[in-house]
Amino acid sequence: MKRPYNFSAGPATLPPEVLEQAAAEMLDWHGSGMGVMEMSHRGREFTSIRDQAEADLRELMAVPAHFKVLFMQGGGLAQNAIVPMNLSRGGAADFVVTGSWSQKSHKEAKRYCTAHVAASNDADRHTRIPAPESWKLDAKAAYVHLCTNETIHGVEFQSLPDLKALGSDAALVIDCSSHIATRPIDWSRVGLAFAGAQKNIGPSGVTIVFVREDLLGHALPVCPSVFDYKVVADNDSMLNTPPTYAIYIAGLVFQWLKRQGGIAAMEQRNVTKAQLVYDYVDTSGYYRNEVDKSCRSRMNIPFFLPDDKLNDAFLAGAKERGLLQLKGHKSVGGMRASLYNAMPLAGAQALVDYMREFAARHG
Amino acid sequence: MKRPYNFSAGPATLPPEVLEQAAAEMLDWHGSGMGVMEMSHRGREFTSIRDQAEADLRELMAVPAHFKVLFMQGGGLAQNAIVPMNLSRGGAADFVVTGSWSQKSHKEAKRYCTAHVAASNDADRHTRIPAPESWKLDAKAAYVHLCTNETIHGVEFQSLPDLKALGSDAALVIDCSSHIATRPIDWSRVGLAFAGAQKNIGPSGVTIVFVREDLLGHALPVCPSVFDYKVVADNDSMLNTPPTYAIYIAGLVFQWLKRQGGIAAMEQRNVTKAQLVYDYVDTSGYYRNEVDKSCRSRMNIPFFLPDDKLNDAFLAGAKERGLLQLKGHKSVGGMRASLYNAMPLAGAQALVDYMREFAARHG
Repeated sequence: MKRPYNFSAGPATLPPEVLEQAAAEMLDWHGSGMGVMEMSHRGREFTSIRDQAEADLRELMAVPAHFKVLFMQGGGLAQNAIVPMNLSRGGAADFVVTGSWSQKSHKEAKRYCTAHVAASNDADRHTRIPAPESWKLDAKAAYVHLCTNETIHGVEFQSLPDLKALGSDAALVIDCSSHIATRPIDWSRVGLAFAGAQKNIGPSGVTIVFVREDLLGHALPVCPSVFDYKVVADNDSMLNTPPTYAIYIAGLVFQWLKRQGGIAAMEQRNVTKAQLVYDYVDTSGYYRNEVDKSCRSRMNIPFFLPDDKLNDAFLAGAKERGLLQLKGHKSVGGMRASLYNAMPLAGAQALVDYMREFAARHG
Repeated sequence: MKRPYNFSAGPATLPPEVLEQAAAEMLDWHGSGMGVMEMSHRGREFTSIRDQAEADLRELMAVPAHFKVLFMQGGGLAQNAIVPMNLSRGGAADFVVTGSWSQKSHKEAKRYCTAHVAASNDADRHTRIPAPESWKLDAKAAYVHLCTNETIHGVEFQSLPDLKALGSDAALVIDCSSHIATRPIDWSRVGLAFAGAQKNIGPSGVTIVFVREDLLGHALPVCPSVFDYKVVADNDSMLNTPPTYAIYIAGLVFQWLKRQGGIAAMEQRNVTKAQLVYDYVDTSGYYRNEVDKSCRSRMNIPFFLPDDKLNDAFLAGAKERGLLQLKGHKSVGGMRASLYNAMPLAGAQALVDYMREFAARHG
């Protein structure tokens, strides 16, 4: 039977090869007599899995040696507290609000620091990113927080701002949860990047943090030990029992990414897939996407039918054709197609074919 | 090939039937066209998995309706901070120190409250539990923290103290990470219980919290939203993306436990397994366990050979016979056999057979 195409915004589709390998190794990993879930996290077997995952991720993303790679728990929402607990020193931080996620980050940070909104696209209903030159950065801010791909609103930064050129000495913090490993990151502009794994990397339950070493060691006293980046780094992410199975699956995805040709190859495919859907939406005369072309997300494409009354019929027909989880986020409405790394071009094509068919029937 | 017996203290052995089912459903759960890792946590499919897991756990453990069941992230070490952030109100809390885990809990709580040691077995090298009548409880303490099974030292509470009878109005908090679901809990004596899943319930990465409703709603302002029990409860553990796959595996384990006859049946088996090993250790004239008989853990049995120089030979011979992960914790040394729910009686018997053989050869 053909596998359906799953457009979930996260947790999201994974490469079938990865799932097949995980199933095959479920009761016995590499002749060890144990499944990965059953291994002591301090044993030789799991340590090798963790180390390989980090090495592959570093290679894929070209992570410089002066960044630590941490495997943590709690997802992006936990990082919204953990970042200010570690980086703000109780002072100030700037937030560029471009959608739901950066909004949540700003709100949570207020518990720990003076959290300024340096810019917001609220007035544009989160459809365009304010030009960096217009951001009102606080000279005293310890860091500037961006969500570089807004999963709900479908807004993506196409490049990272150069804070130094904007006159700021702050560290740039990026929440790249929903587009990590889908395009390169310019590390020279970044202080810290975090990403929940459940979009492009693996199952929910593991959060990857990349942190420049000079930012370690300044956690507030109220920061729990397990969320103090320095403590986590000093313990190779093993202070507490890490989410071992999620790290293992992430590692299998990293190996799959390498077999696909790495991040540059994935980026090219992601551009092609997104272009296919946006081009059709823009020329259809039926569907619409409201995000400014300069900052449309390659990963998450919200789109609307001419009449919301047709939404249920659209979703039902999609499901019949094996196109799953296309319903838009409740705060935006309409539809949303997520085209993460594991979504093949054929999936984007099948979606466009169905959209065309639906428009012809109802248009 | 016969599957080895895996005595890891955690992450730990899981029932083969559970792993087989997980492998079979890896690419397609119940005809949905998606694996469990790939499902939106808010979709109908995953919601049904979560709800069933909670219902089964409530039934198995006879959890009263006025307790919330939360699925969280961060493990026991995170709870060491999360509990005082939620329950202490910045006042005082009492700790009964019986081993490494309660010691860590006490240390971490100091960040958030006045953390008293009400009793400690430090002078006895964590081999006996101080009698509750001797505990120096603080009349102002918001809660009293125990670790009811010390995984490292092999010390287990055989019953829960009645704090009211000891003159305390505090809520009893129990860290039952390493013996949850292996014996009943007397909920009338408990305010909050937490457990990392990776011993008796499933993979690492999900922590289960049972909290009496009247204890909700008093989190300190520094408590991250994702760790505020009331916020988590109000959102059915879905404020952030939960560790969906870990919850699914936990649910499969709960169904397996029901098929085994539930907690009462498991307790009986656990008593039998532990008795088999302790009886042999005590009568062997070769091995020794140093924990007082009144509080020996059914789950984690540390034992020592007469000479540490034989440890490597013991471990190598064990591995040859398919007896894995018996090395003791570095802070205690020697050996440790963990006999969680998923360890069959045949595994405990195979261990004793090997221990007898080894003693005969080296004794």
